[in-house]
Formats: sequence, C-alpha cells, structure tokens
Amino acid sequence: MDTITKLPLELNRKQRLRLAVSFETELIDNIVPFWETHSPDAVNGGYFSCLDQKGSVYDTRKYAWMLGRQSWMFGKLYSEVIQRQEWLILAKSGVSFLRDHALRDDGRVYFSMTKEGAPVYLQRKIFSECFYAAALGQYGRASGEEIYCEESRSELDRILEWAYDWTKVGRPALPGQPASRMLAVPMILLNLIEEVDGLNTKRYYTEAEDCINRILLHVDHERKVVRENVSLDGSTLEGPDGRLMNPGHAIEAGWFLLHWALFHGREDWKDHAVNIIRWSHMAGWDAEFGGYFSFLDADGHSPAPLEWHMKFWWPHTEALYSHLLAYRVTGNPEDLANFQKVYAYIVEHFPDREHGEWFGYLDRLGNPTHTFKGGIYKGFFHIPRALHLCQRLLENWDSAGGLIQQAT
Amino acid sequence: MDTITKLPLELNRKQRLRLAVSFETELIDNIVPFWETHSPDAVNGGYFSCLDQKGSVYDTRKYAWMLGRQSWMFGKLYSEVIQRQEWLILAKSGVSFLRDHALRDDGRVYFSMTKEGAPVYLQRKIFSECFYAAALGQYGRASGEEIYCEESRSELDRILEWAYDWTKVGRPALPGQPASRMLAVPMILLNLIEEVDGLNTKRYYTEAEDCINRILLHVDHERKVVRENVSLDGSTLEGPDGRLMNPGHAIEAGWFLLHWALFHGREDWKDHAVNIIRWSHMAGWDAEFGGYFSFLDADGHSPAPLEWHMKFWWPHTEALYSHLLAYRVTGNPEDLANFQKVYAYIVEHFPDREHGEWFGYLDRLGNPTHTFKGGIYKGFFHIPRALHLCQRLLENWDSAGGLIQQAT
Repeated sequence: MDTITKLPLELNRKQRLRLAVSFETELIDNIVPFWETHSPDAVNGGYFSCLDQKGSVYDTRKYAWMLGRQSWMFGKLYSEVIQRQEWLILAKSGVSFLRDHALRDDGRVYFSMTKEGAPVYLQRKIFSECFYAAALGQYGRASGEEIYCEESRSELDRILEWAYDWTKVGRPALPGQPASRMLAVPMILLNLIEEVDGLNTKRYYTEAEDCINRILLHVDHERKVVRENVSLDGSTLEGPDGRLMNPGHAIEAGWFLLHWALFHGREDWKDHAVNIIRWSHMAGWDAEFGGYFSFLDADGHSPAPLEWHMKFWWPHTEALYSHLLAYRVTGNPEDLANFQKVYAYIVEHFPDREHGEWFGYLDRLGNPTHTFKGGIYKGFFHIPRALHLCQRLLENWDSAGGLIQQAT
Repeated sequence: MDTITKLPLELNRKQRLRLAVSFETELIDNIVPFWETHSPDAVNGGYFSCLDQKGSVYDTRKYAWMLGRQSWMFGKLYSEVIQRQEWLILAKSGVSFLRDHALRDDGRVYFSMTKEGAPVYLQRKIFSECFYAAALGQYGRASGEEIYCEESRSELDRILEWAYDWTKVGRPALPGQPASRMLAVPMILLNLIEEVDGLNTKRYYTEAEDCINRILLHVDHERKVVRENVSLDGSTLEGPDGRLMNPGHAIEAGWFLLHWALFHGREDWKDHAVNIIRWSHMAGWDAEFGGYFSFLDADGHSPAPLEWHMKFWWPHTEALYSHLLAYRVTGNPEDLANFQKVYAYIVEHFPDREHGEWFGYLDRLGNPTHTFKGGIYKGFFHIPRALHLCQRLLENWDSAGGLIQQAT
C-alpha cells in the first residue's frame, strides 16, 4: 500500500489498473507471506491465529472462525488468483482440522480447541458453523472434490434450521426477552449462500431472497440509519439494543447485497444497498479524527459497548470494497470520495511498515492499542478478502468484477 | 472532592479528619442524591441503573448485580452513617424486587429483567447470586428483620456449593479446557462472607480461610504479579489466560484480605495483602498518562481485552481505600504516596463537575469515552463504598476503621 498514497480524483482505466496492481502487491507480498510463514501448525495441522506483531504465536488455541475463514481465503486465492499448490494444501489443512476436531455429530462446530483439537468452548450461536461451511464449499470448488461441496450444503441446511431460533443451539428463551431480529444473522447467511452455492444458486435462492428481505427490515429510511436489532416487523426496538448501530457491519451487508443485486439485475436491491453503504458511512465516520466508530447509538446516547470509540481494521476493509463497488454501480462522485477517504485512512493508520501485515485495533485518535497481527477475531480474512475483491473489481470494471454476467 | 485537591505529605489527625469530611461531603451531597433522585422505579419498585449523564434512564431493564449492590449500599449507609428512613426504604425496594422477580426456586438469580421483572438473561456464573445474598444480609441487619439474614445465609450456602464447579450453574465442561482457578471467585466469596455473616463469623470461618488460601495461589511472588487465572496448584497456566492481570481486581482483593488479617490479627495475611496491593499498583499504573490499566499481560504481550488501555472508575476507588488502609497498617510512606497518586488522579479525572456523580470510563489519556453515570456494571456501589470506607477509616484511625477490635 506504499506505492500509491494519493489517489486521483477520477478512476480512469490506467489509474484503476495501477491501483489494482498496488492491491495485488500488498496482498501477495505483504499479507499472504505473513500468514504462510507464521500461522501453519506443522505438527497438528490447521493454523494458529494468535500471532503477535512479528508473527510469534502467543496463544496456541485454535479458533473455528479463524480456521474456517483462513481456509476459505486460501481456497479463494487458489481459485481466483494463482493456482499455487501450497495455497490449496493450506486451505485443506484448515478444513481438515475443523472436520476432524471441531465438527460434532449433530453438525455443531466448537468455537475453540486446543492446538491438538480437544474442544474448549462451544458458542450458543451459529457463526462457527457458518465459517466452517464456507471453508468446505470453497475447498471443494478449489480442489474439485465434490464431496466437500456436498458437505458444505448439508451444513448450510442445518444452519438454516437453527438460524432464526437460537434456542435450537442452546440459548434459552426467557419471557422478558423482546422478540427481535439481529442483522448479523441474515447478513452472514446471505454471504454464506453466495459462498456455498454461488450467486446463481437455485437450491437456496428463496432463502437468499428471504435474507435480503430480513436485512432490509433493519434499514430505517426515515432516520437514514441501519439498526443492528429491530422488532419482528422491522419497527424500532425499545432500549439501547434497538438504538445500536455497527456501521462497519452495515457497510459489509451493503456489499453482500450489491453482489446479489448486480448478478440478478435487481435495481431495487441495488438502491437499497447503496443507501445502506452511504448512510452507514455518514453515520459512522468520525468527523473529528477520521475512521469508523465501532458502535454508535442512533439517538446519540453514549453507546454501551466499551470499544465503541475504537477504530478496527475490518470496518475499513469492508468499506474500501463497498464504496468502490458502489462507485462502479452509481458513477456518483460521492461514492468515489468515500472510497478515497477510507483508502487514505487505511494507508495512514493500519499497515505495520516495520513488521508487515496490518494493525487491527486503534484508539479513537488512530494510534494502535494492540500490536498483535492475529487474534480470536482478526485473522487471514478481512484484509486479503478486501484487497482481492478490490483488485478483481478494478481489473474487471466493465463486468463489475464479474458480477454482471451479461457484460463482456 | 472539590474541597481538597492537594493532600499533605503526611496524614496527621487534623488532616485525616478534614479529608474524612471531604469524602463524606462527596458521598452525601453528590453521589447519594444522584441515585436517590434518578434511580428508583416508583411504579414497579427496584431501581434503574442505566442513567445518562444527567440522570435520565436510557435502558429500562433491571440488572441483578446493580440491584443487589445498590440495595446493599443503602443498607450500609443506613446502618453505619445516618439512620435515614428513606435509605432503608430504598434498600428494601431493591432486595424485594430481586426476591420477587430475580430469584428462582433453585436459588439461581437472573442477571437481567424487564422493568416489570420478567427475566431476560441468566448468566452461567454465580455473581448475581452473590450480590443478591449481600443485599439480603445487609438489609436484614439494617432493618433488624432476621428472616433476611437467614435467607442471606441460605443463599450463601447454595453459592458455596456452586462456586468452584460452574457446571452446576450450566457451564459445560469440555475436555480441552485446562483445569484452572479464577481469582474472581474466592475474592468475591471472601467479601461476601464478611457481608453476610461478619468478620467474626463462626459458621463460615473455614470457608473464609479457604478463600484466602485460594486467593494466595494467584500471587506470583517471584514475578511480583497477581494473575487472574492459575493452574489448580497455583502454578502458571499456559497461554494468555495465565498471563492476564487485572490490577484493579487484585487491589480490591487486597483490601478484602486486609479486613480479615486485621480482625483476626493474622500478620501473614497482612503481609500478603500489602504485597498484593503494592505489586498490583506497580504493575498496573500507567507511568505515561496516569491511572490504572484495566488489563495487562504479565509477559508484556499485547493484552487481548479490547479495553485493556482504558481507565475505569472502579480500580481507582478500590485502590483509594486499599492504599489508605495499607498505609494505616504499615505506616510506610510508599503506601501513602500511592494513595495520594490515586487520589489526585481521581480528583482530576472522574467527577463530573457539571452534572454530578462521576464518569466511569476514560480513554488511556484520561478523557471520558462514555458519559453515562450508570450502566450494566456501574451503579451505586464502588464510589459510595470507597468514600464511606475511607471516611470510616480516617475517623477511626486507631482501630483501623473498627477492624481492630482490641483498639479503643
């Protein structure tokens, strides 16, 4: 990311290709080697994700989110960037570790394990299962081993049964809990369907449409905000849960939705997605110090999460791709300006120019608060995914990175 | 806290009494009125704890930790400061709400409820039960209604059964989890025994000794650090859990232990307690910006908790009393200097001179990140307790606040 720090006001073809090269360079020369070098566990298989500033392992436990996401990412790079055998082997190492150790007979997936694979913790959520399913599907496609694709669909079938009723994954329902919806669930599922069965899915098209309709319940058009939690009918949920905004989450949901909108030519979905991205940018950007807040309260109360004021890497990587894709779709300078703003913030704050990879956690002013490169939630995922998606989009501008099938 | 901002280098009798007056003034004129005015729920009983900067309720749910602690505090003030009938009524309101709505038949206590009392969430921990038991005991003593004291002991009996095996409160044991001990459990229990049955307890003396022995397993004498989690025999637990330090927690455990040491004349416990307080101060104080870090890693790794770099109110209130009590016990200027350092930091950073009460959450530099006065974990507890304990100690210096029974 050192090669271009100032972006042109327009993105003409030459500038797009130059930018694509810089993203590819960052991905292949900085991010990938860090994880290839430091994360694999040569003894037990799978990867360590808790890597300190220089790459040393500071926690030997293994985490299903991180294993699934890293496996998925290496499979994706193998499928779409370079057919390097090492990447396929790495992808398999993660998916095999999960399959051998994290997966239970009932399809539930442990959240964390010892380095040897003994289960440590099971979340009463569905996300470990989601990232496992994504890894299975991606590895199946990358390797051509159809059995993994089938297992991926079976796992997704189970997840869809559990997704909207977490009593099925062990979370008790108590009478005082308000009936509500979380953005996280349909959002992750929508992306998971794309990963498991493709945007051209027949098997899950109804479920994908259902996810989109559920996501749109979180968009408050009157206030121009996206709420993390809403009532069953989409109306405002009383209390801080109903006022909670997670701008990075919403922006990420924006590009998930844009993929479906573009592939299926749905103008209505496209308009919604662009609104989600723009409104969440407006609400979430820190006008004083730059960067996205992690959480906000829609009514301006002091947000309850302790880390609301901190700036995390992943909202910025998601926004980078979202704004670029929105600009491709709308041609509106507002979206380009948002992209440039996020790009400049990233270049200035996140890359660790001394030891490689990026910092993940900054204070409100933009100074790193944590020096580790990988942890329980930061792994080989958001950064390489955004760099890859941006590169793919910039290089295939006319087809919007291949999303618009009709285009040449 | 405005009246004295610079403390004398020694604390002679006159200075102690002047300081006691300033703590009492802060307690009675600033802290108590805020909660008396804004927290009671006149309709349903109990109190709201989520109060914004000016005292408005921003979350109507009720939280067992906060109800129990606030009830306990009003009972304590009634018993030990002024027999104001309003305080006894307020104490009863909290304990009754918990008894009517939070308490289950099996003795478990819900963590959160709607304002009417319908259960929202049950933690797989024992702390809601602990704060309920403390409130029962304190109310029983304050009101003279022995039935509450009996119920308090019955609840404590149940807690002691569950305390060291959380599978009994629904937390599954998985084969990869290392056998380990948490400081939080014996520490809270030790204080709870003092609250429920007094330092002169016969019924729970063995259990109190057991708590103390368990606390001491967390003290690493070689490194001079207190670890939040250790192996069963007190040896270092592998990984970030074993390196985790929570200086405020340890300092709080220090004064809990000092109470037992002083009351029972145990020099060995006294020496351990003073070490815990001093070592945790040395490790936890931010030499650059002042204030206590929330978490640290004993080996200097980037601490995993997102909020490790933030400065919270409660480690500072606990340290205020701990250092003062340590100074009373040792006469060592080091402890007085620590007290003065914490005192100066508190006066400069926490009180909200515009709207009353104190801010709870600051960034590393000392600027408030959250403006609310009460939340899920900040209530009418740490601040008034520390002010009251400091006042009691300063006014009864010879008997160390009444802890040394023999003294006159």
